[in-house]
Amino acid sequence: MLSSIKRFLIGRPLKSDALGEQKLNKKKALAILSSDALSSVAYGPEQILIVLITVSAAAFWYSIPIAVGVLILLTALILSYRQIIFAYPHGGGAYVVSKTNLGTNPGLIAGGSLLVDYILTVAVSVSAGTDAITSAFPELHDHNVSIAVVFVVLLTLLNLRGVTESASVLAYPVYLFVLALFILIGVGLYNIVTGEVPPELHTPVGTPIAGISLFILLRAFASGSSALTGVEAISNAIPNFKDPAPNNAAKTLAAMGTLLALLFSGIVYLAYYYGITPLAEVTVVSQIAEETFGRNFMYFFIQGTTALILILAANTGYSAFPLLAVNLANDKFIPRMFTFRGDRLGYSNGIIALGLASILLIIAFKGHTEQLIPLYAVGVFIPFTLSQTGMIVKWIREKPKGWVTKLIINSTGALISFIVTIVFFLTKFAQVWSVLVFLPIIIYIFHRIRKHYEAVGDQLRITTCEPSTPIEGNVIVVPVSGITHVVENSLNYAKSLNPERIIAVYVAFERGDERKFEEKWKQWQPDVRLVTLHSHYRSIIQPLTKFVDTVEHKANESNYRVTVLIPQFIPKKGWHNFLHNQSSLLIRAFLLYRRNVVVTTVPYHLKK
Amino acid sequence: MLSSIKRFLIGRPLKSDALGEQKLNKKKALAILSSDALSSVAYGPEQILIVLITVSAAAFWYSIPIAVGVLILLTALILSYRQIIFAYPHGGGAYVVSKTNLGTNPGLIAGGSLLVDYILTVAVSVSAGTDAITSAFPELHDHNVSIAVVFVVLLTLLNLRGVTESASVLAYPVYLFVLALFILIGVGLYNIVTGEVPPELHTPVGTPIAGISLFILLRAFASGSSALTGVEAISNAIPNFKDPAPNNAAKTLAAMGTLLALLFSGIVYLAYYYGITPLAEVTVVSQIAEETFGRNFMYFFIQGTTALILILAANTGYSAFPLLAVNLANDKFIPRMFTFRGDRLGYSNGIIALGLASILLIIAFKGHTEQLIPLYAVGVFIPFTLSQTGMIVKWIREKPKGWVTKLIINSTGALISFIVTIVFFLTKFAQVWSVLVFLPIIIYIFHRIRKHYEAVGDQLRITTCEPSTPIEGNVIVVPVSGITHVVENSLNYAKSLNPERIIAVYVAFERGDERKFEEKWKQWQPDVRLVTLHSHYRSIIQPLTKFVDTVEHKANESNYRVTVLIPQFIPKKGWHNFLHNQSSLLIRAFLLYRRNVVVTTVPYHLKK
Repeated sequence: MLSSIKRFLIGRPLKSDALGEQKLNKKKALAILSSDALSSVAYGPEQILIVLITVSAAAFWYSIPIAVGVLILLTALILSYRQIIFAYPHGGGAYVVSKTNLGTNPGLIAGGSLLVDYILTVAVSVSAGTDAITSAFPELHDHNVSIAVVFVVLLTLLNLRGVTESASVLAYPVYLFVLALFILIGVGLYNIVTGEVPPELHTPVGTPIAGISLFILLRAFASGSSALTGVEAISNAIPNFKDPAPNNAAKTLAAMGTLLALLFSGIVYLAYYYGITPLAEVTVVSQIAEETFGRNFMYFFIQGTTALILILAANTGYSAFPLLAVNLANDKFIPRMFTFRGDRLGYSNGIIALGLASILLIIAFKGHTEQLIPLYAVGVFIPFTLSQTGMIVKWIREKPKGWVTKLIINSTGALISFIVTIVFFLTKFAQVWSVLVFLPIIIYIFHRIRKHYEAVGDQLRITTCEPSTPIEGNVIVVPVSGITHVVENSLNYAKSLNPERIIAVYVAFERGDERKFEEKWKQWQPDVRLVTLHSHYRSIIQPLTKFVDTVEHKANESNYRVTVLIPQFIPKKGWHNFLHNQSSLLIRAFLLYRRNVVVTTVPYHLKK
Repeated sequence: MLSSIKRFLIGRPLKSDALGEQKLNKKKALAILSSDALSSVAYGPEQILIVLITVSAAAFWYSIPIAVGVLILLTALILSYRQIIFAYPHGGGAYVVSKTNLGTNPGLIAGGSLLVDYILTVAVSVSAGTDAITSAFPELHDHNVSIAVVFVVLLTLLNLRGVTESASVLAYPVYLFVLALFILIGVGLYNIVTGEVPPELHTPVGTPIAGISLFILLRAFASGSSALTGVEAISNAIPNFKDPAPNNAAKTLAAMGTLLALLFSGIVYLAYYYGITPLAEVTVVSQIAEETFGRNFMYFFIQGTTALILILAANTGYSAFPLLAVNLANDKFIPRMFTFRGDRLGYSNGIIALGLASILLIIAFKGHTEQLIPLYAVGVFIPFTLSQTGMIVKWIREKPKGWVTKLIINSTGALISFIVTIVFFLTKFAQVWSVLVFLPIIIYIFHRIRKHYEAVGDQLRITTCEPSTPIEGNVIVVPVSGITHVVENSLNYAKSLNPERIIAVYVAFERGDERKFEEKWKQWQPDVRLVTLHSHYRSIIQPLTKFVDTVEHKANESNYRVTVLIPQFIPKKGWHNFLHNQSSLLIRAFLLYRRNVVVTTVPYHLKK
């Protein structure tokens, strides 16, 4: 039953050798890996204006030089990640690059921030998309959290079905969004060129503004840089690309960079020329669209595709998180189960973990995840800085052909990313301080997990050829609850193993009971020794474990091994288990986890 | 850790022979077993007036004859239950009496309604008490559900601590409530006698009223009878009394009946004489108190003790439910676990089940459980009718000394209870129809459970002396995951059992892996046969169970028994288990519940 529901939801299992067919071509890869970055265009320019308005609307012309700064940072990041793709063709991303070049801890800082960041990506994007939808249908507003959770569940299922299938579904909205914004920018520029937009709406570039400071400009720049979150996704996901993976990934990265640059500068320029002021209820993109088209079909088309791409931006998290988790799990910093491929060859445990964690975040913040955006931006720029610093170290160490150019590119990227990170901490400390608490905790956990795996490995590995202490004989203890077929079945089995000794143990709750049972037993199984224990506190476990301890102690002296043989009847239907005390499970758990005895369950399958 | 929290909350475990000390004397028994019945005084009279006001305030004089009717019913019930106590000194109650005299199904109808009813008692009483408290502190009103849940949890813990301890705590509020109402009635009557209350406030008894009908009078009578819920509690709980239990119980019952009759008629009379009209916001008792004392200390004392006793009324459910559950469980109609005594000698499973079920009800109805009151009244009068009909049958069958008087008493009780039940169905069908759906379902479940227990009993019982098929030999299958100390440990154990054959099984996910492992194995354990299985779908379970099936099939032919021996390493700390795939648990569950093989877990305890 369960397995057929599973099959319906995520499709039939795929054989391991079908892995090649599940890889992405460039068009699909661009769609699912760049939705996060492209969707940032919907809020990045607005973030700049929100900072500048604190001075005055006349300061809006500063958005142009700031946008130029963001474009320079974008170019540096794209070029830098292009170098990373070719340097780490098996999927690099900040974790691998930082770890390899800077050491384990910088790697873990990068990996830990990204891991948390992808969870934030999913929670924030889906909540933002849901907000966009419920703004259009206010009667749904009370159900924000449930709707967001449903979207996360759908995205999780889609990703469990497999990368290519989700890419096919998700490609359309991404390309529609790009198309919609290009039409908007094109028509907007045409209007400006034909002089339909009055130039009085904006202050000319260069107008001196009182009260502007470097601090505010840096802050505006940092806010605008939040549009760059998501550019690292492609370098993490190289293993998902069709061969030749690095070339395809690099081309996809270039295409994404170009699209992002065009859309970002177009929106910033239009916002500046139209003199748009950021409002609480209406987004900047929505205002531009209304100025350009009025409230006609195109306006709603732009609004609709924007809402969709915000939700789909979450999908970037689904592509990157599981691959990052595999890298961390291979290095034993997180549980090994993240390295297993599921029925459809995706890393299902990573996908499910991401879905669950973001649902928890959405519920905890009651859908108001916009408070998390600064946290999320910092979580991206820390690994940006680390990975590019790693590349600097790499070039200096290896000095390959043309290393100076490469060094300059990565140094520029590292420097700007570092500045953005610092600016975030300086200007938004109240919202981002928690990174300084959580990151050390996460890294501590990573180390603890690794330490455990290494300790286990050491203890399991067979290094020397010394033989283990031989087992000289066996003692079998059978807890019995009555004179039944189940017990008989277990005793027959015990006898067939020819142990040195069989002891049946009966726990009595009442005094009279004890004597009666012993007599019956003598008649029934005269050749099996019966020990009766009395339980004052109506518990079977306590007297039984005590008894097993004594037996084990004695057995150890002569290198005998103690086996506790638990008779268990298995009812025909699952629900019947509710009707029976699961004493045998309890006994097993207590003995197995606390004592050094072998625990055997002898099933007696009921037929009715 | 867990066990010390448990000890703090419910106290140290008690030995079984301490049971006698946990029994109740009359004073404590009256307090904990009559709080439900006595608390009904707080709303019973009001229910009568609410029906009469639908005609006119002049019709209020009918409350006097109706109250006389309720008192007659009360007398009949008390006398009748007195007879039940002596006839069934081991704790009767409606279930046992109906089952013994009328047959299984009537017994189950009575038992099923009471079981549900006690859950309703807890939910309704606690919600009503919480309402009374939050009316006084309106800022708490939003937290109604949480407060009610906390009260249920507290009552559950108190009852898990044991009957006498809860009686000691709960006796004070009950007696304070009785005291408060006696003062109220006394002062009220004194005011009437001294002529301080103007007689114009009420219409004289006998005034003809237009529009009054038998239907309305019956409905008012039925509503007033809801004050009698809870009188059956004592007869259910005889086993909790000190010896001589039946005598003590009968005396307690008489005391409760007298108190209930006095308080009920006092409140009805004062309400009539003061001309009180039922209001939505202020209860009738509260209005009488305000008329009598004004808003001084006595007024708040009466309000406070009323709120308390409403919450404590729930405790009657805690006394009666577990004992009823024991009776049903002994007859195998509900899971056997309800017959076990916990650490403090209470039937903890019944107490916990009751607490959980009522918390669910409170949450499901968001604390507005007053909608459930009619359901709850019907759920009491059905077993009232059945148990007294049972007593009629008993007297006619047995004809003991003085049986005619006894017969008349029970017949009166049965008749009035039956009429009240019918009136409930006729006048409040919309609220009580669900009884007709749920009761058959519950009874069906009772029968299914019993059938299962009987089938199991038949299959386990050793009836004939025919020997079971002997086991001729053993085959041991060891699933192995690598060349480690854990596997070595299991193989040594397998060898020590001297089976006819040992087979190690390795499941490979990749082709190259297979060959490599086989070679290593040959060097390491040349005397143990290794079988490698290939898994296309990255699952261990599927190929393994298939293989075990084949082995089992062959083994069966020569009466060999198959044992699957699972090597398992046990990490030192519990949280470590998260870091390891619980494949061994999964393998065990699959093999144990689906195949006829013995499953053995060989632990290897890690030291770090």
